[in-house]
Amino acid sequence: MAASRVEIVAEGLIAYIKDNHYTVGSKLPTEAALKAHFEVGNGTLREAIRMLVSRNILEVRQGSGIYVSEKRGIAEDPLGLELIEEKETLGVDLLDVRLMIEPELAALAALHHTQEALEQLRRCEEKIRACVTAGEDHSAGDIEFHTLLARCSGNSVVDRLVPVINSAIYAAIDLTQNSHSVDTLKEHEAILDAIAQKDPTGARAAMIAHLSTNRQLILKRNPQKK
Amino acid sequence: MAASRVEIVAEGLIAYIKDNHYTVGSKLPTEAALKAHFEVGNGTLREAIRMLVSRNILEVRQGSGIYVSEKRGIAEDPLGLELIEEKETLGVDLLDVRLMIEPELAALAALHHTQEALEQLRRCEEKIRACVTAGEDHSAGDIEFHTLLARCSGNSVVDRLVPVINSAIYAAIDLTQNSHSVDTLKEHEAILDAIAQKDPTGARAAMIAHLSTNRQLILKRNPQKK
Repeated sequence: MAASRVEIVAEGLIAYIKDNHYTVGSKLPTEAALKAHFEVGNGTLREAIRMLVSRNILEVRQGSGIYVSEKRGIAEDPLGLELIEEKETLGVDLLDVRLMIEPELAALAALHHTQEALEQLRRCEEKIRACVTAGEDHSAGDIEFHTLLARCSGNSVVDRLVPVINSAIYAAIDLTQNSHSVDTLKEHEAILDAIAQKDPTGARAAMIAHLSTNRQLILKRNPQKK
Repeated sequence: MAASRVEIVAEGLIAYIKDNHYTVGSKLPTEAALKAHFEVGNGTLREAIRMLVSRNILEVRQGSGIYVSEKRGIAEDPLGLELIEEKETLGVDLLDVRLMIEPELAALAALHHTQEALEQLRRCEEKIRACVTAGEDHSAGDIEFHTLLARCSGNSVVDRLVPVINSAIYAAIDLTQNSHSVDTLKEHEAILDAIAQKDPTGARAAMIAHLSTNRQLILKRNPQKK
């Protein structure tokens, strides 16, 4: 079975998902129905499905069926950052990229957010506050906060990119004994307030201040860089 | 054979590549040597290798051996952009992300480029000029130009991110009948001149001007957006 045949069916499956507006988490027809639709054998279809599972586009739940993956086709470690040797440099480089993207994103979020999204952000902030008060690690909440914010921007690429960059930060650098947890809360709130007031300049500036605190923290731990 | 066992060997292989400083394109020891090193069977090792091939970390050349992939672990369509339905919106969204990243990148390139990298950029620009003069598609040259520039920034994340975003632009939008090819040449030169003069402000401004031309072009073709 030539690889190209499998690839054609895989691309066909992607087109099929889009044409039929199957959204994230929805269930596709049975394997038998897909086999009939694409007029291919078991082996080809299964290999095409396996290819899309490895690309995080599909998910096969044993005994249940084939679903559009919640991972939205975003690869694990999509930029191959795990291969970079200098973890300290990587931490600052990641933060520098956040400084390029997230201030603009905060400005866009101030213009484009819905009331519902803002409430979701406030609930996320409450979760982070609870973690900080309990002296627990709030990295998951922090990634969620910036991911929700990215979703408010209305930019579909930023929406996919920001979670990748933010997760990589925590993979590269141990920020769990986060000495500036209380600052984080204040800084997040300044960002949220500016967004609630539909103030893009304020949101941009508050985000720069927040990321700057993080950057200083990383540099303090790794003074060899820059 | 449990998946976790394979994953452990795959992670072991990544650590092995890094610890032994195997660079992109270099050849790993034979399968037999790796089998002995990791103390695993044929099946487990091969499946781990296959996993890393699918992640673009390794490449197996039949009859030759196992190599560190030139693709540097960067996934095909790493952000799952192929799944986004609205191609016109995607084009502007991609350009907006470029506007967040590339002006800063140009400023960094003005500060951090080597003479050799600058000459490589000039040679790339000559290739683009030859394409434009011959009336040929210069999209490959354009992606290369911005990729080389990203490499000059000294930021390892930008270096991996920019080719992904730039390639996606051409996948999302047909810019091949590029009406502003001559402008492209002038704009690229303005960027190169500022970099050669180690002028970060000039490089940043020239990049904004260049991307702005592109953005206007996309909006003109898709007036429904914004």
